[in-house]
Amino acid sequence: MLTIKTIAEMQAWAGASQRQGRRIALVPTMGYLHEGHLSLIRLARERADQLVVSLFVNPTQFAPNEDFDRYPRDEARDAALCEAENVDVLFQPPVDEMYAPGHAVYVDEDGVARTLEGAHRPGHFRGVLTVVAKLFLAVHPDVAVFGRKDAQQLWLLQKMVRDLNFPVAIAAGPTVREPDGLALSSRNAYLEGALREQALCLSRALREARRRFQEGERNAYLLRGAMLDIISAAPDARMDYIEIVDAETFAPVAVVNRPALALLAVRVGGTRLIDNMELSEGAAS
Amino acid sequence: MLTIKTIAEMQAWAGASQRQGRRIALVPTMGYLHEGHLSLIRLARERADQLVVSLFVNPTQFAPNEDFDRYPRDEARDAALCEAENVDVLFQPPVDEMYAPGHAVYVDEDGVARTLEGAHRPGHFRGVLTVVAKLFLAVHPDVAVFGRKDAQQLWLLQKMVRDLNFPVAIAAGPTVREPDGLALSSRNAYLEGALREQALCLSRALREARRRFQEGERNAYLLRGAMLDIISAAPDARMDYIEIVDAETFAPVAVVNRPALALLAVRVGGTRLIDNMELSEGAAS
Repeated sequence: MLTIKTIAEMQAWAGASQRQGRRIALVPTMGYLHEGHLSLIRLARERADQLVVSLFVNPTQFAPNEDFDRYPRDEARDAALCEAENVDVLFQPPVDEMYAPGHAVYVDEDGVARTLEGAHRPGHFRGVLTVVAKLFLAVHPDVAVFGRKDAQQLWLLQKMVRDLNFPVAIAAGPTVREPDGLALSSRNAYLEGALREQALCLSRALREARRRFQEGERNAYLLRGAMLDIISAAPDARMDYIEIVDAETFAPVAVVNRPALALLAVRVGGTRLIDNMELSEGAAS
Repeated sequence: MLTIKTIAEMQAWAGASQRQGRRIALVPTMGYLHEGHLSLIRLARERADQLVVSLFVNPTQFAPNEDFDRYPRDEARDAALCEAENVDVLFQPPVDEMYAPGHAVYVDEDGVARTLEGAHRPGHFRGVLTVVAKLFLAVHPDVAVFGRKDAQQLWLLQKMVRDLNFPVAIAAGPTVREPDGLALSSRNAYLEGALREQALCLSRALREARRRFQEGERNAYLLRGAMLDIISAAPDARMDYIEIVDAETFAPVAVVNRPALALLAVRVGGTRLIDNMELSEGAAS
C-alpha cells in the first residue's frame, strides 16, 4: 500500500493509472475506521481496479464550537486496516496541503444544504462539498463510495456531481449497526457508561416508525410523534430534529406516499448522533 | 470542426482525446467573437493539440436587472470564425443542458469576489466560477485561456484552480484594443453615436494613470483622482469604481510599491464597460 500526502503526487498517480486504463475507486473517510467504513471499502474494491482511501479530518465541515480538535484519531490502526483490505493508496494529506493559507473558494448548495444537518450545523455541507470536490479533483475516481448513514450528505454529493458535471459515479453502502441496533459512528467512542444504552433511542425510534409505516400509517406527523416519544423517554437525549423527507427530493413530507426517509439527530449527553431509515413499501426491516 | 451540444458527448470526446495522449486547450466565451477572443484562440492553439472553444451565454453570471436577454449573439458568424481558426470542437450547450431544473450547487469565493465587479454585480462571480468549473469538468482541458481585460475574473479563476485542485493551467492573453484605445468587448456593440467617442474615457484615464506612475507618482489616491477627472469630463459617463489593487492579492493599495493594476468600471450611457492596466516598473505603455 502506497501512502500519498500531497495533491500533486496523488494527481500524478491517478493520471498514470488512468493512462493504463485502470478504473479508480475512492472511499473518502475522516479515519478512526470502523466496520461501516470497511464495508464501503469492500464495496469499492468490487467496483474498480485501483482502490484509494482518503483519510482527512476536514476542519471546514466542523463549526467553531464542534469537536474538530477532539475528533477521534488512530492513524496507525487505520493504515493497518486499509492494508488488510488491499487498499492500493492511502491518501492522507496534512491540513495545510488541502487548505493553503488564504483558501477562499468553496462549493455549496442553495436548498437542501440549509435544512436538517445544515440548519443545525451552519457551514457543515459547504465544508463537505468543498473537500469532496477537492478529493475528486485530486484522485480522479471513476466511482466514489459513501455510507447511507449520512443520508443528507449522500444526497448532496449526488446533487453536486450532477450539477457540476463531475465524471464520477456515486455508490452508496448500507448503514452498519451494532448487534443492538446502534449505527456505527466514530463518535460512538464518546459514549460512556449509561449514555451508550440511551443512544439506542435513535435506532429504536426509527424502527418504531418503520413498524408503524409497515402496519399502514402514512401520516408523517404521527410517525414523527411516535419517534419523539421514544427519544423523550431517554433522560439524557435531546432531539435536534426528527423529520421525514421524500427520498428523491429531500423535501419534508406530510404524508408518506412515495419512498421516504425518516431522519433524526439527537444529542445523547454531549454527543451528537444521527441516523436514518428508509420508509418504502419494499424496504427490509 | 465538430459542434458538440451535450456534456456527456463533450466528456466522451475529451476522454478519448486524453487516452490518445493529446493535450486539450479550452477558450471559454459567451460568443459574439471579436479580435480579443481570436487572439486567445490563437494563443490556445499554440499550447495544445486539440482546441475547444465553448460558446455559452451564461445566465447565472447576469443579475436579474442586467443584459442577459439582449446580450449580442451571432452563432453562425462565431462558428465561421472558429472554423477559420482551426478550432477542433465548438462546445455549444443549450442553457437547460448546463443548468437542469433545480440546479442548486455553486462554486463561490469568499473575499475578492465581494469587491469591485462583485460589489456592483452581486452573484456575478458565483455564476462565473460555477460555469467555468462545469466547463472544466466537461472539457477536461490541460490549459484554459482567459483575457486580461477581465482581470478580476482571471484572478478568481486562478484562485479557484488552486483552491479546488483543478488540474488545469490558466493562461492569460493581453487586452486587445481598437486603434483609438477602446478595449474590445462584445458590449461595445451597444455604443451608439457620441457614446462611442465618450467610451474612450476609460482607456484615456488608465493611460493617464500609467503616465503619472511612470513619471514617479506612487500615491494611489492621486492616481485615482487623475483617472476620475478624465471620467468626469465625459458628460454621459458615470463611474462604478476606480481602484488600484495589488496584482498578486487583488487587495486595494494606498501606495503603489509592488506590481499593481488600475481598474475601472464606468457606465457610458446605458452601457457598462470595464478596463484595466498594469502599473509596474517594467510594464509596456
